[in-house]
Amino acid sequence: MALGVPAFPFTFVVHFLGIVGIVLVLVWNIHFRGGFAWESSNKSLIFNIHPVLMLIGMIIIGGEAIISYKSLPLTKQVKKLIHLLLHAVALVLGIIGIYAAFKYHNESGIANLYSFHSWLGIGVIVLYGIQWIYGFVIFFYPGGTPDIRRESLPWHVLFGLLVYVLAVGAAVLGFLEKLTFLESSGLAKYGSEAFLVNFTAVLTILFGAFVVLSAISEGPAVPADDYAPL
Amino acid sequence: MALGVPAFPFTFVVHFLGIVGIVLVLVWNIHFRGGFAWESSNKSLIFNIHPVLMLIGMIIIGGEAIISYKSLPLTKQVKKLIHLLLHAVALVLGIIGIYAAFKYHNESGIANLYSFHSWLGIGVIVLYGIQWIYGFVIFFYPGGTPDIRRESLPWHVLFGLLVYVLAVGAAVLGFLEKLTFLESSGLAKYGSEAFLVNFTAVLTILFGAFVVLSAISEGPAVPADDYAPL
Repeated sequence: MALGVPAFPFTFVVHFLGIVGIVLVLVWNIHFRGGFAWESSNKSLIFNIHPVLMLIGMIIIGGEAIISYKSLPLTKQVKKLIHLLLHAVALVLGIIGIYAAFKYHNESGIANLYSFHSWLGIGVIVLYGIQWIYGFVIFFYPGGTPDIRRESLPWHVLFGLLVYVLAVGAAVLGFLEKLTFLESSGLAKYGSEAFLVNFTAVLTILFGAFVVLSAISEGPAVPADDYAPL
Repeated sequence: MALGVPAFPFTFVVHFLGIVGIVLVLVWNIHFRGGFAWESSNKSLIFNIHPVLMLIGMIIIGGEAIISYKSLPLTKQVKKLIHLLLHAVALVLGIIGIYAAFKYHNESGIANLYSFHSWLGIGVIVLYGIQWIYGFVIFFYPGGTPDIRRESLPWHVLFGLLVYVLAVGAAVLGFLEKLTFLESSGLAKYGSEAFLVNFTAVLTILFGAFVVLSAISEGPAVPADDYAPL
């Protein structure tokens, strides 16, 4: 299923959609939802941290981490370091974002972990963490044997893309769940905010699709002095 | 990203999960939701047709259609016919299922097409139809030139898997949306029905993951007399 087309144009679409996604989720949570707070009597401001950190962290920075091997004209060692660091940032922002959701629930008397969004989200953050640790140990430090690296690379790519697609799914479930709650409390079903949130969900799926498309396309030519082990 | 492992064991997991999925969605809609009707003063019975036909049609039969090339020890021509027919059945059940959702909305005074589940669902059924027509014309009748077939086959596979993953996403969004409505109307958040629906969503994702895994793994050896054009 590797596509014999260059990934580079797809990676530009990813960067562009990523910027649009950041703008959309910030406009939603600042302009429509009133902004952010870590401590506040207005508990909704605590919740607002959640969608912003999950989208910017796990989806957008995580997506950029995945495509770093295809989007950057650098040596493999440098790209690997960027891949590792961006995924670490994505993971940390994801953990803080999930903590914000629990904090909001606990301070508002809302039940935790009953919805499928929360189930999938917890599953994704656990798998994301396992995948990061496996990648670190096998491909970075101390590093597996050449056989183990070669054997496990396609599975690392496949499992990583699976976890990423599940993360995109969890994000879209979150948009739908939050909007359904807001609409149950009187928000207009065809109003500006509802359309903004739904278009953010459309954007999230397009972003994820172009990340996957970049990942299965051909990266830039490897510099001649860069045929080091993985 | 083609995996150098045989698809056959994965296809058995698909069949098994498919049977479990059919049982779960029927138990939910018959035992917990009261069964089905096309005409009834109890409009919920019209709605119940929707999740059953979408899951059994587009997800399970559609998934079996995708893996038919990997699961069946038959000639390519026979497998192509099965692929085509199962996708047609999936598409027809999907259209009837979507019609049932509109019928329920219209007869109950509920707004149409405001939620992201409905947006994605309409997008998927349209793309599914386009993909089926393209496959029919290029690969079945009248059939494209050998160049067109060879060039477009990887894109047919890629686009088909993309649409299928979106269909799985739409199904899971539907389970979450329906359950959120039921819980807003008083259904217990940690009760039997809520767990049943959430586990059906888990099952749906696992089924989709094994369909994709089967599709990117190695099919059974092609019989020697079967190197006909695609």
